[in-house]
Amino acid sequence: MLTKEEIADWFQGLQNDICAALEQADEKGKFLTDTWERPGGGGGKSRVITDGNVIEKGGVNFSAVYGETPQKILIALKLSQADFYATGVSIVLHPQNPWVPIIHMNVRYFEMSNGVHWFGGGIDLTPHYINRDDARFFHTSLKEVCDRFDATYYPKFKQWADEYFYIKHRRETRGIGGIFFDRLTPAGDQDKSDIFAFVQAVGQAFAPIYTHLMHQHKNEPYDEQEKQWQYLRRGRYVEFNLVWDKGTKFGLDTDGRTESILMSLPPFASWYYNYSPSEGSPEAETVAQLTKDKNWLP
Amino acid sequence: MLTKEEIADWFQGLQNDICAALEQADEKGKFLTDTWERPGGGGGKSRVITDGNVIEKGGVNFSAVYGETPQKILIALKLSQADFYATGVSIVLHPQNPWVPIIHMNVRYFEMSNGVHWFGGGIDLTPHYINRDDARFFHTSLKEVCDRFDATYYPKFKQWADEYFYIKHRRETRGIGGIFFDRLTPAGDQDKSDIFAFVQAVGQAFAPIYTHLMHQHKNEPYDEQEKQWQYLRRGRYVEFNLVWDKGTKFGLDTDGRTESILMSLPPFASWYYNYSPSEGSPEAETVAQLTKDKNWLP
Repeated sequence: MLTKEEIADWFQGLQNDICAALEQADEKGKFLTDTWERPGGGGGKSRVITDGNVIEKGGVNFSAVYGETPQKILIALKLSQADFYATGVSIVLHPQNPWVPIIHMNVRYFEMSNGVHWFGGGIDLTPHYINRDDARFFHTSLKEVCDRFDATYYPKFKQWADEYFYIKHRRETRGIGGIFFDRLTPAGDQDKSDIFAFVQAVGQAFAPIYTHLMHQHKNEPYDEQEKQWQYLRRGRYVEFNLVWDKGTKFGLDTDGRTESILMSLPPFASWYYNYSPSEGSPEAETVAQLTKDKNWLP
Repeated sequence: MLTKEEIADWFQGLQNDICAALEQADEKGKFLTDTWERPGGGGGKSRVITDGNVIEKGGVNFSAVYGETPQKILIALKLSQADFYATGVSIVLHPQNPWVPIIHMNVRYFEMSNGVHWFGGGIDLTPHYINRDDARFFHTSLKEVCDRFDATYYPKFKQWADEYFYIKHRRETRGIGGIFFDRLTPAGDQDKSDIFAFVQAVGQAFAPIYTHLMHQHKNEPYDEQEKQWQYLRRGRYVEFNLVWDKGTKFGLDTDGRTESILMSLPPFASWYYNYSPSEGSPEAETVAQLTKDKNWLP
């Protein structure tokens, strides 16, 4: 029977593999390691990269925390008392070049002392400028991973990502979505290890997908105006993470490790009052495509 | 009897007076005007300044909105149905020079069709570098305004500001506080116009206080490292506004006018992972003073 420690060990290995793959693709930036303990139980390892050739700022975080279940979860699950164990890997990467997209990935496992347990996760892409080929490549790659396990996964989890990564007060999606799933448990003749195998496949898909996008665009020339647009889109990323992202809010509310939670924030972001890109510009074309329910497949 | 329209008219006059005083002190920046309507009733006038000599980005917003009370307020007030009317002026100014502090002011009036009504407001200062003389001047000015009306106001509202302008996940205050009050209604032999007179005095105190601080520091030289620190402190300002500020959250939740609500965000902000200023530096001294319950009076 698959144990929580085996899952956490595998996640830690995934963190190492992804950092190694990103360092190789970046050719300059190196991940620093910050190991931390959680007063209530467990801890984590934050790995942070800054000023790379391709990655301007990014984090690949592993954590495995446990202890008394926070009151907020108990209320949500209608439980009076239980211990919990949560482990996962979280990634956000902000590139230097505005033609390289921002990416986010998370895989996680949650277990309670009453036997309840589930997996969750997702990958989503936030291009500063939407590129149709990249979007097709990204969604096709995710669909292939999903289809190896269950033909219903991609459509279901793609829709979930559209709903989740939505900046309600801007009436726009954070980017071109991807997949998102939560509270995933075995169905039919599946067992826990089948779900874990899917989560592992999602985790392993991350590095090849993103290093491909890095290589594709890292040398594309850009000007000051395109960099300004990148800063503005990063501002929207900040707005999503601080206002709407449930993981961020939960972490900040329950006294999580602030610096690890907020590693998702960009190195530099900007806000202009009521900025609206001129009609027909690449910026306006990108904004026009930030809608739910778009089919990005070929 | 003082009507809601008289209050709204006075607030609109205050907006004009403050914009005029700030333009005069800035000597370059001009406020642009953006008039907007609220689909459910009412509207506002956003006045925005960018790239001034002293002010890098700022907004002085007036609004008077009304209609059906949002569900969230009805629940909080345990009411089943009522119309509301809300009017006020909100200001946030981000200066160019890191030695000039960020300032925020808000004065507001809220009334419901069932007769319930109250005033609220506050002013707080967020220096990138805390200056003792400025802090003393700022708090003394606010105490003088308060003391003209009620000797209990300053201590009570100063403490309220310490609690309100607190960045819980950073365990630090947003700045050196100021005053904050909400649901202020007549007590003893006061009537509504006494409370309004206090709110007017708070509003009128804003321009002399901030233009003094502008003049005091606008020509102080600064270097790139001090500007970087300013960007980082602005990042904390973004965190407070998007994660903890009740007004911002309420506005975004209830479909308020996003661009007017988020005019409080800085032109540029930055995040470094786990940044900690070196011991004994002016930056470290500032952070050490970002605590509640500090007495800033002489």
